[in-house]
Amino acid sequence: MTSPQKQFNYDPALEELAELFGDRLKTANAVCEQYGKDESFHPSAPPHAVIQPENAAEVQSIVKICNRNKTPIIPHGAGTSLEGNVAALRGGICIDSARMDSIISVNHGDFDAVVQPGVTRRQLNQHLKNSGLFFPIDPGADATLGGMAATRASGTNAVRYGSMRENVVNIEAVMADGSIIQTAKRSRKSAAGYDLTRLMVGSEGTLGFFTALTVKLYPLPEAISAAVCTFENIEGAVNTVIEMIQYGIPIARVELLDELTLQAINRYSQTEYAEAPTLFFEFHGSQSGVEEQARLTQEIADQNQGSQFKWTSNAEQRNKMWRARHDVAWACKLLRPDGQIWSTDVCVPISRLAECINQTRKDIEDAKIIAPIVGHVGDGNFHLLLLVDHENKDEIAAAETLHHKMVMRALEMDGTCTGEHGIGYGKIEFLKLEHGEAIQPMRLIKQALDPNNIFNPGKIFEWHR
Amino acid sequence: MTSPQKQFNYDPALEELAELFGDRLKTANAVCEQYGKDESFHPSAPPHAVIQPENAAEVQSIVKICNRNKTPIIPHGAGTSLEGNVAALRGGICIDSARMDSIISVNHGDFDAVVQPGVTRRQLNQHLKNSGLFFPIDPGADATLGGMAATRASGTNAVRYGSMRENVVNIEAVMADGSIIQTAKRSRKSAAGYDLTRLMVGSEGTLGFFTALTVKLYPLPEAISAAVCTFENIEGAVNTVIEMIQYGIPIARVELLDELTLQAINRYSQTEYAEAPTLFFEFHGSQSGVEEQARLTQEIADQNQGSQFKWTSNAEQRNKMWRARHDVAWACKLLRPDGQIWSTDVCVPISRLAECINQTRKDIEDAKIIAPIVGHVGDGNFHLLLLVDHENKDEIAAAETLHHKMVMRALEMDGTCTGEHGIGYGKIEFLKLEHGEAIQPMRLIKQALDPNNIFNPGKIFEWHR
Repeated sequence: MTSPQKQFNYDPALEELAELFGDRLKTANAVCEQYGKDESFHPSAPPHAVIQPENAAEVQSIVKICNRNKTPIIPHGAGTSLEGNVAALRGGICIDSARMDSIISVNHGDFDAVVQPGVTRRQLNQHLKNSGLFFPIDPGADATLGGMAATRASGTNAVRYGSMRENVVNIEAVMADGSIIQTAKRSRKSAAGYDLTRLMVGSEGTLGFFTALTVKLYPLPEAISAAVCTFENIEGAVNTVIEMIQYGIPIARVELLDELTLQAINRYSQTEYAEAPTLFFEFHGSQSGVEEQARLTQEIADQNQGSQFKWTSNAEQRNKMWRARHDVAWACKLLRPDGQIWSTDVCVPISRLAECINQTRKDIEDAKIIAPIVGHVGDGNFHLLLLVDHENKDEIAAAETLHHKMVMRALEMDGTCTGEHGIGYGKIEFLKLEHGEAIQPMRLIKQALDPNNIFNPGKIFEWHR
Repeated sequence: MTSPQKQFNYDPALEELAELFGDRLKTANAVCEQYGKDESFHPSAPPHAVIQPENAAEVQSIVKICNRNKTPIIPHGAGTSLEGNVAALRGGICIDSARMDSIISVNHGDFDAVVQPGVTRRQLNQHLKNSGLFFPIDPGADATLGGMAATRASGTNAVRYGSMRENVVNIEAVMADGSIIQTAKRSRKSAAGYDLTRLMVGSEGTLGFFTALTVKLYPLPEAISAAVCTFENIEGAVNTVIEMIQYGIPIARVELLDELTLQAINRYSQTEYAEAPTLFFEFHGSQSGVEEQARLTQEIADQNQGSQFKWTSNAEQRNKMWRARHDVAWACKLLRPDGQIWSTDVCVPISRLAECINQTRKDIEDAKIIAPIVGHVGDGNFHLLLLVDHENKDEIAAAETLHHKMVMRALEMDGTCTGEHGIGYGKIEFLKLEHGEAIQPMRLIKQALDPNNIFNPGKIFEWHR
């Protein structure tokens, strides 16, 4: 990388911003270092300064100054991204949404909420407590809704409730020219013009800064139950899920965990799950509905060599199970205390999922790397947690080869190089292989909407063909 | 409108195309007239020629010739659009998808199908017969899937299954530069790059020509039942639906019909429905599930002054009810045999729906126009069928005023000027009012992806600011 100072003219932008924001413009190295790093293994690339605006008008003034000076802007939420999405590759100004954390309105009759971008998913659900409504999207981290929209995040509920793609109704964004747009109205449907909402969702901060979002909410189900079932192999588990969908069972969550993950969980969470390919299920519906769903699921699982099917309507038992699932990263970390986790994901058509996982497991074995697998199997999406010593070059090279093979396999199976983590700067080469000719329209859109390339430069794809 | 010949150079394009396609390039006035008109009241604007390519390579050669000569291309499906979407406002070449009507593959395990753009929704469902799968999106007409994707169509099932926005997985499109892109892979989720799929869905043929689509399929429910219920007023009906959603009833269809619509139906379909605000319901699920859904719905309806709740699991009775609903346009036409139907729609947050409909009904009364209302109430979307004599200027003026008030009301309620018909050239002024500053990014995208403005020029928004 060439020195950012040679490419961009930061001093005037910093001076103008300091004049406007005084002490609120943070330039201390210690602060900037922290903002240049996400939860991935990618090295930190600190911005020149960090600022926490309090409203859209402040964001607008920052964007105008930066656009005039061609200074990069890196939008920042909770910093929990996994592909270096928040790294300030060319320096610039990090806009942190931490102070824009108000829940503006909850519209009970319309099943939606309007929030500022810094609101986290747990904060929103805490606020909704006793309202009878909830927000379902649950990536591993307690991410901000702005960051989740930017990354097109999803989680364990996506099989039933969709990802951020399906659950963002409107985005208020400050564009590169300083205009503040609303991508849509608050109606559930619209056939009015280009779908700017979906264009902004997943754009990873490269098209504008989100200053408010309207998201869908759902009624809390009358009854929730959970189940766990062990399988002889991955095929049995995946086929169970395919048949459940064929049968029309409105499964709310279905998570696949492999032997190694169960070992890690048992050790970390003091549980006693069988250490074999396992599905964790959750059912939402009426009391009789969830019972029927569980009964049908057991029948289907039985036909796929499932065993030890355990069903519970007890909330405590259910929460314990999902807590164990949510702690998988911590649990897996203990499989190799001296290593770091490199978390990556792919997503394939579900009919190819078992094959994709099995071939990847073969590669893991060959590479002699510890790498548990957990999957949102209803979506065909799975995560590989590579436990590697980042100082060990041979090991990193072996992990990279393994990773490369997994992604290429997913692409060959008509799948995608990332189901929910985004591209950041970690998967740019894979995106090229995935999209081919379709990168060019993306690039043309970026160049048209952000001609000075101020928004999160160096992410998703390269500026030049 | 200025003469198209002055703006564009058609002769060389026509010559090149004639050389390549011979007799297949149709230029007869009678043919062109027919292709310049959709099912709306907008006057015909015929293209200079019509061609029916058979594959993507032929489309590509047409696009290259047209782009080189700056000749407009108007994509054409079944011609059932309602806002002049297919009118060749500046002449040019109409590309009709009629011969690209093959179902390429049905992927049973992945619940999707790959089709050419000229496949109609009924053709696809006919093909899926006995497969246990179906495609749910059902606009009034038997539209092509290419056209439905272009218009972001929906229909009576959208409350449960979503619109084309949620149900298109991938689009193969020929772009203005002649490149053939795939907007996505076939996996259910992806966080890889800009969402070009959703950008193309609803772009009304202004960004490219669709040569193939992958769409989602759903398992046929084990049981389907239907119900009908009469209400004292619109509020009772709408509140019933809101409470059903709050209760988590996974309603598959819920259609609102006003008194006048029921009068028309009774006369046309020889039925004996009460001539009052009415909901038609459909429930999908297991046998016990649909019974439970109907029972809960009746309880909720009772609390909202619903009466004459009739439930049926009989397929013949159910089909008769939906046949009556689908024949609404024909039935309403008979309310005024000397008039024509001007069909328009808006969509608002569901909490405002009853108010929006009631105020519109008041305007209808004042305007002395016959205008029944039917609504996809679960989405907050309703249609107004204005029965007017298009030769009568006073009447048209009154209808336009009424229409204008309805759209402005929807926008004030944070709704949209069209829930499912699109903008075409009939609602360009309303789109400006709806999107304001957000038109500019749409325009920049159009100019970047189609710099010669060849794809369906004059639609959705104006080229110049």
